[in-house]
Amino acid sequence: FERFSPVLPEAYLDSAVVMLGAIQPGLQHRVVDQFEGRRRRPFILADTFDLWIHTTKPELIKLLKRIDLFVINEDESLLLTGARDLVVAGKLLRKMGPRMVVIKKGGHGSVLFHPEGYFAIPAFPVTKFIDPTGAGDSYAGAIAGYLASAGRTDFGTLKKAVAYATAVSSLTVESFSVDRLSAAGRKAIDQRYRELEQITRF
Amino acid sequence: FERFSPVLPEAYLDSAVVMLGAIQPGLQHRVVDQFEGRRRRPFILADTFDLWIHTTKPELIKLLKRIDLFVINEDESLLLTGARDLVVAGKLLRKMGPRMVVIKKGGHGSVLFHPEGYFAIPAFPVTKFIDPTGAGDSYAGAIAGYLASAGRTDFGTLKKAVAYATAVSSLTVESFSVDRLSAAGRKAIDQRYRELEQITRF
Repeated sequence: FERFSPVLPEAYLDSAVVMLGAIQPGLQHRVVDQFEGRRRRPFILADTFDLWIHTTKPELIKLLKRIDLFVINEDESLLLTGARDLVVAGKLLRKMGPRMVVIKKGGHGSVLFHPEGYFAIPAFPVTKFIDPTGAGDSYAGAIAGYLASAGRTDFGTLKKAVAYATAVSSLTVESFSVDRLSAAGRKAIDQRYRELEQITRF
Repeated sequence: FERFSPVLPEAYLDSAVVMLGAIQPGLQHRVVDQFEGRRRRPFILADTFDLWIHTTKPELIKLLKRIDLFVINEDESLLLTGARDLVVAGKLLRKMGPRMVVIKKGGHGSVLFHPEGYFAIPAFPVTKFIDPTGAGDSYAGAIAGYLASAGRTDFGTLKKAVAYATAVSSLTVESFSVDRLSAAGRKAIDQRYRELEQITRF
């Protein structure tokens, strides 16, 4: 990445939803720059990685003021905010810029901090755990896909997007790469989404 | 406890629900013994403690065949079963005797394994965390109280009991001893129960 500068194809510049993967914050900024001055500002979500908190924290903190949704794992949320628990961390992160924050807890599920409220969802009960690589990327990607498909970012839609991402990433970890997720397809994702509804209702 | 043997008052022997606190399994057996041959067999739940898994595992394993619901924390469930994750641990524990198992995960919520299905609930988002002492006891006690009050142990009732216990224990940790829980009373518990419904629905 030392000499890489992302240049988006023209067709991408009308995107309604943009996801910034967990690359170096300087490169994330370069992507956001390209949407400046467009007719329609996209909904921007970003993921990060502990390395950037250690090495390029000022750039990451500036990025937080340019995005709508920040997706981060629990340990990184505590590292970045200095908070001792995730409820405090989520509130502090929202004060740092993004209107919405999702904190991921791996096998313990995830939580959403939205201007309209708080939402928590447990993990899907995976029994064939093979490899966690890509779980975070497919989780954030599933949120982006769900929001683009819904065309809304209200609290109800964000809750559903988080549940959908929980279903998607539970398939990712059941094999290497995206093998299981790709083979499973939309039907299996929808099935797990409905199972998540069932196992959380009381 | 070396020379202690629990003798239940006559009035206790008609209890519909019995909770065995996390004392030495030999003493838990002495309590169960006193219900043998009664007209109505009570619903028995038991908690445990890692010390007993290390020191008196055979007695604990025998106890599992005499109870209806086993409440245990995540680390202890892995220690006792040798499983690597809690979904497997819960299934293995049910095969060891109790029809129902609840695994507690502290700030990550808890999960229920019932003959009719699986249920998962996140923790209540506590922001004034003071002292975890007694959280487990008040959690198990709340399940016992809820079941005794409901008079049923079907899946739907157990889910509600677990949600009620989640609300109760979230108050316990907001002060030392039972100070906060005792001051809060039923109204605050019911309020948190409703909030738990709200923050988990999608």
